[in-house]
Amino acid sequence: MNGAVASDDRGLAYGDGLFETLRVSAAGDTPLWPRHRARLLDGAARLGIPVDGAALERCRADALAGDTGAGVLKLTLTRGPGGRGYLPPDDPTPTLFARRGGLPPWTAAQREQGVQLGVCDTPLGLDPLAGCKHLNRLPQVLGRREVAAAGWDEGLMLDEWRRPVEATAMNLFAVFGHTLWTPSLERAGVAGVARAWLLERAAADGWCIDVRMRPLSHLRAADGVFLSNAVVGVLPVRKLAQWVWPVPEPVRRFQRDLDHLFQ
Amino acid sequence: MNGAVASDDRGLAYGDGLFETLRVSAAGDTPLWPRHRARLLDGAARLGIPVDGAALERCRADALAGDTGAGVLKLTLTRGPGGRGYLPPDDPTPTLFARRGGLPPWTAAQREQGVQLGVCDTPLGLDPLAGCKHLNRLPQVLGRREVAAAGWDEGLMLDEWRRPVEATAMNLFAVFGHTLWTPSLERAGVAGVARAWLLERAAADGWCIDVRMRPLSHLRAADGVFLSNAVVGVLPVRKLAQWVWPVPEPVRRFQRDLDHLFQ
Repeated sequence: MNGAVASDDRGLAYGDGLFETLRVSAAGDTPLWPRHRARLLDGAARLGIPVDGAALERCRADALAGDTGAGVLKLTLTRGPGGRGYLPPDDPTPTLFARRGGLPPWTAAQREQGVQLGVCDTPLGLDPLAGCKHLNRLPQVLGRREVAAAGWDEGLMLDEWRRPVEATAMNLFAVFGHTLWTPSLERAGVAGVARAWLLERAAADGWCIDVRMRPLSHLRAADGVFLSNAVVGVLPVRKLAQWVWPVPEPVRRFQRDLDHLFQ
Repeated sequence: MNGAVASDDRGLAYGDGLFETLRVSAAGDTPLWPRHRARLLDGAARLGIPVDGAALERCRADALAGDTGAGVLKLTLTRGPGGRGYLPPDDPTPTLFARRGGLPPWTAAQREQGVQLGVCDTPLGLDPLAGCKHLNRLPQVLGRREVAAAGWDEGLMLDEWRRPVEATAMNLFAVFGHTLWTPSLERAGVAGVARAWLLERAAADGWCIDVRMRPLSHLRAADGVFLSNAVVGVLPVRKLAQWVWPVPEPVRRFQRDLDHLFQ
């Protein structure tokens, strides 16, 4: 499972592939798996990588068959080896593998009181595969280095018009009265499965959903700001530069709902 | 040399690395090596990957020590395994390896009479690492698939304002009287070593050098259009949609100069 990949694999050569990072519950379940699988199949179709759902099921099941316990399961799918330069082979043999890992080190205090965000200088430009969780992640690597250098907990990444797209590894949300806002990710960003789950849940609960690109200043008047991903769940944001937000009850409820799902 | 890479290598996980593709002469020389090495070191510095020139020299020398003969030598440098998600490890152990390959299958007729270009739909968005030959190459993979589907020889990739940046695997040039034009690659594209060599050569020969972004229509009035890279040298362009260009003497001279270097 934690083996090696051929040095001419196109995942390594060009980032020609996709990945998914799943939260594994203490009981060994992966509750958001159907959404992860659907996103992976959709990305594979966009890239033209032939894979079927059964192969993904087997890969996940095999990886979970050994040691269980809460943690993270990462699936990687690439177009496999070969091709002539950038041109993929006509009949590729995709590479698919799983790796287990531990949960990210967010503390109870950070989850309770919220984290401090910064604004990364690294921009997120137009991505022809916006939404996909593909293997071209250098902007996120650069952004994450900025976060570490500045001592923030996470970093917002902006588009060329300085509109927030997402954090380096989490989607962005803000609450305004009965409206839940998140950037639209039409030009860049990863369409998170926790994001989709939260949007559906909120819509079903009667929230007004606002999915569009907004200037950074839009956040100033928010009642609460939070981040989400499928491993951490909901992480409230306490502070961004001079702006400070409380953690209002709706944000705590979203957090509890996802935590409950992950139990 | 043609081995395997750990499945948690950051080159595979995020495209967190760089590559160089060198032309190897029949005598086993790599005439543009100092430029390749300089670009690789520059990219490594921008990414924060610790590597020294001596390690690159050894890797190249070892790869050329065995079978020689004309062909291609590809060097890949990644940040190596590890890290916590996108955050690189503090003290990375880079992965560096070489692979030999054959020359691309351009025919004598294509090199003599020129090739047919198309215009790819896949855009090249803002790249925070513009100029670097990094491992995030999904736009080029998508573009190259368009070229194959349409039956072109190569494809021009445009920015969001439909200005040509480069072809999928080659830089773009055009000749207008005594002026040699090439796109400026400030926001996207790979700063080719053959491109740099040609620009210096042309400037030394008294050409007026015009390095800036121009609309696609700028090409219409060109005396001649050509592509370059460090493996193929110069490839004249004969046709793009309804536009047809001859192969003027200056383009043949640039081609001969680079072919001479590669002998």
